[in-house]
Amino acid sequence: MDYIQKYIEVHKERFIDELFGLLRIPSISAKSENKMDMVAAAEYLKKMFLGAGADNAEIFSTNGNPVVFAEKIISKDKPTVLVYGHYDVMPVEPLEEWNSVPFEPVIRDGKIWGRGADDDKGQLFMHIKAFELMNRTGKLTCNIKFMVEGEEEIGSQHLGQFCADHKKLLEADVILISDTTMISPEIPSITSGLRGISYMQVEVTGPSRDLHSGIFGGNVVNPCNALCDMISSLKDKDSRITVPGFYDDVYECGVEERKVMSERPFNREKYMESIGVTALNGELGYTEIERTGIRPTLDINGIWGGYTGEGTKTILPSKAHAKISMRLVPNQEPEKIAALFEEYLAKIAPDGVSVKTRYLHGGEAYMSPIDSPEYKAAEIAVESVFGKKPIPVRSGGSIPIVATFEKVLGIKSILMGFGLESDAIHSPNENFPLEQFFKGIESVPRFFENYAKFKGAR
Amino acid sequence: MDYIQKYIEVHKERFIDELFGLLRIPSISAKSENKMDMVAAAEYLKKMFLGAGADNAEIFSTNGNPVVFAEKIISKDKPTVLVYGHYDVMPVEPLEEWNSVPFEPVIRDGKIWGRGADDDKGQLFMHIKAFELMNRTGKLTCNIKFMVEGEEEIGSQHLGQFCADHKKLLEADVILISDTTMISPEIPSITSGLRGISYMQVEVTGPSRDLHSGIFGGNVVNPCNALCDMISSLKDKDSRITVPGFYDDVYECGVEERKVMSERPFNREKYMESIGVTALNGELGYTEIERTGIRPTLDINGIWGGYTGEGTKTILPSKAHAKISMRLVPNQEPEKIAALFEEYLAKIAPDGVSVKTRYLHGGEAYMSPIDSPEYKAAEIAVESVFGKKPIPVRSGGSIPIVATFEKVLGIKSILMGFGLESDAIHSPNENFPLEQFFKGIESVPRFFENYAKFKGAR
Repeated sequence: MDYIQKYIEVHKERFIDELFGLLRIPSISAKSENKMDMVAAAEYLKKMFLGAGADNAEIFSTNGNPVVFAEKIISKDKPTVLVYGHYDVMPVEPLEEWNSVPFEPVIRDGKIWGRGADDDKGQLFMHIKAFELMNRTGKLTCNIKFMVEGEEEIGSQHLGQFCADHKKLLEADVILISDTTMISPEIPSITSGLRGISYMQVEVTGPSRDLHSGIFGGNVVNPCNALCDMISSLKDKDSRITVPGFYDDVYECGVEERKVMSERPFNREKYMESIGVTALNGELGYTEIERTGIRPTLDINGIWGGYTGEGTKTILPSKAHAKISMRLVPNQEPEKIAALFEEYLAKIAPDGVSVKTRYLHGGEAYMSPIDSPEYKAAEIAVESVFGKKPIPVRSGGSIPIVATFEKVLGIKSILMGFGLESDAIHSPNENFPLEQFFKGIESVPRFFENYAKFKGAR
Repeated sequence: MDYIQKYIEVHKERFIDELFGLLRIPSISAKSENKMDMVAAAEYLKKMFLGAGADNAEIFSTNGNPVVFAEKIISKDKPTVLVYGHYDVMPVEPLEEWNSVPFEPVIRDGKIWGRGADDDKGQLFMHIKAFELMNRTGKLTCNIKFMVEGEEEIGSQHLGQFCADHKKLLEADVILISDTTMISPEIPSITSGLRGISYMQVEVTGPSRDLHSGIFGGNVVNPCNALCDMISSLKDKDSRITVPGFYDDVYECGVEERKVMSERPFNREKYMESIGVTALNGELGYTEIERTGIRPTLDINGIWGGYTGEGTKTILPSKAHAKISMRLVPNQEPEKIAALFEEYLAKIAPDGVSVKTRYLHGGEAYMSPIDSPEYKAAEIAVESVFGKKPIPVRSGGSIPIVATFEKVLGIKSILMGFGLESDAIHSPNENFPLEQFFKGIESVPRFFENYAKFKGAR
């Protein structure tokens, strides 16, 4: 046991208690009713940063939810690591599928259960506690800054502006983020790329009121049927997206890159079993790893219209709605994709209904080089804790703000994530294994140590 | 003013008060929470029948909601009219679109506003008050029986059995029903046919839980997208239903019948304006009147799946649902159509999802001859009150029990309805013009008078 492991061993119960305090705050950014909880979460974090030894910690208001900033500067000659995370979480519906209360965290079977346990309160908290550890043991080797936002799950709408307004404050050599997964503790990985996203909401309106489906059925274009037709027209039989121009800017991976990717282990049977399906399907001509890693996709996130209650109601509904998101790959611009989508829907809408399309949020894809000092530092840190060299993985998820960081601040990010796919983030029964939590805390000081060394050596 | 008009004039305010008492009971048959309201409505009706002069009135329990029976037998030599109606109503959602509270009836602009004002509490009440009128004025010319059920809006699931169990009690020469519309007070009409219905609920299941749409999107068959694809496959580009065998038993109208139908006035512009659409569409090769009158159709009544709340949630949902009803024409059998539908959906479901189809309720179509004594009696009654000979109309709606009456009891029904299309039945702001209500009450004794005459003359 070295000083890192010892510190964790001594303080682990307090670490969990303090994390639970944050998990108990229902900071759901999608819901306006939770507005005050966002402030409560930010204040809780400020207290934590000061407790861990920050020189200063500050809550910045934005036009949305507040941003928490904290820092400790040890020397102008040392490199600076900016840690990014978010304190907002996803909605918790459907509540009846949770085995415990989402905002009353519990430990069961060696895991922390609760909304945000992994994404991203749990993973963010590893950094706060690692900072405390480095600080209290006198081993802080880099300057450290924290920027924690409350709008990641709704598209980080105000963080770009915050970055533009505080460039000086946020100056750093690298941004370190734990908001992703690794393949497994046995096959550790580091995320080397993220997909972008365009998230749309569609409203189809037919008649001005719900009609009797017998009296009017046969003459009136049913907006629910029309929406289904339109959605069905968004992909062809090969699962390629049919929106004209959609693939125009797609970054096509070379043969070599696809070959490296194919070496990543993938167990189709286990994958299907873990999500309870008996077959997979996706874009023709690509493997499962490629379909989520390097190819754009389109999914309905929600659909509703007409009578959805118990029993029967014989109406021809007035309206139908859908939330549809497209995951994007490098070079695709979210706003452009949103515009193409809107244009196409307007074109294919049948006479007799009107269509309103809203662009709810978006973000660009991101690729990280795997030969940079920060990648190497992360690689060594993860290997020393997990006992195996991590492999680089292009993730299917999106952290749109990562592309913004590069554009606005000119800083590259490193995505050293400790979540597992079984953590059920965004789903009922979100969880985070205690072992991943503590190994995450252990990895961070090792990253700092190596990063300081590499930067010093350059 | 004859005795009928005078009696109505003297008692009209009380008639309205008594109807309001019934309208205030939220007897929504689709919702289990309203179970006790069904009993309250039945008891209210029993009181009304006794007050109007019934020899006896009785509430029969069934395996569903109770049936109210009442009668007055004046002579074995007189024909017997069995009046059918229903005291159950449709759900009231979306509540925010109502201009007044659904179960607090009010009079505004010469109309009664509230759920059930027309369908069918208002129209049923006309018969109760007409019975009172005939009784108190000593002009009852036929024996009269009432059978009022509480499950019409959910498919009259237990009334067939009730009829089979009480054949003797229900013996009659004709069944008189006011649960339909006329074209307008200026163009009165009598419904000479009804469509049947098969009402289905579909559940599509993909992964066993909601998944992160980024991590999994591209590999996993999205049940919402799959449902849209399947629904889109239910009709071809000519709006013909593609379920194999669907049209096999359809009663095809002859040229002559279609010619008579084409003489019914239809103002496309006004029709579109009344429902707020700018275009109509339906099965190729048929007119608007034919599309609702003599052709089967398919409509989504409701659809839901995934996240439908405020803002964004990036999930690939576990489930998708739809309520889909098909309106049927003579000779189509609801159970057979339901089976064909289920078979087809199972066939077109993509690998990676499973489909459960439930048959919620159904009923056969009905056609009524227009040269029978009951049709003639209704024709004269309506003409004497509205000043114009009513035209026979094949309605798009369904009253499945009418076909059951013929099968089980061997009695034909006459559909003398006084609703208007603007009454917004099944919709927010259901209403019933006072003038139609009172003209309805006036028409009933005139029907009895002529029916007794025609039956006596045979």
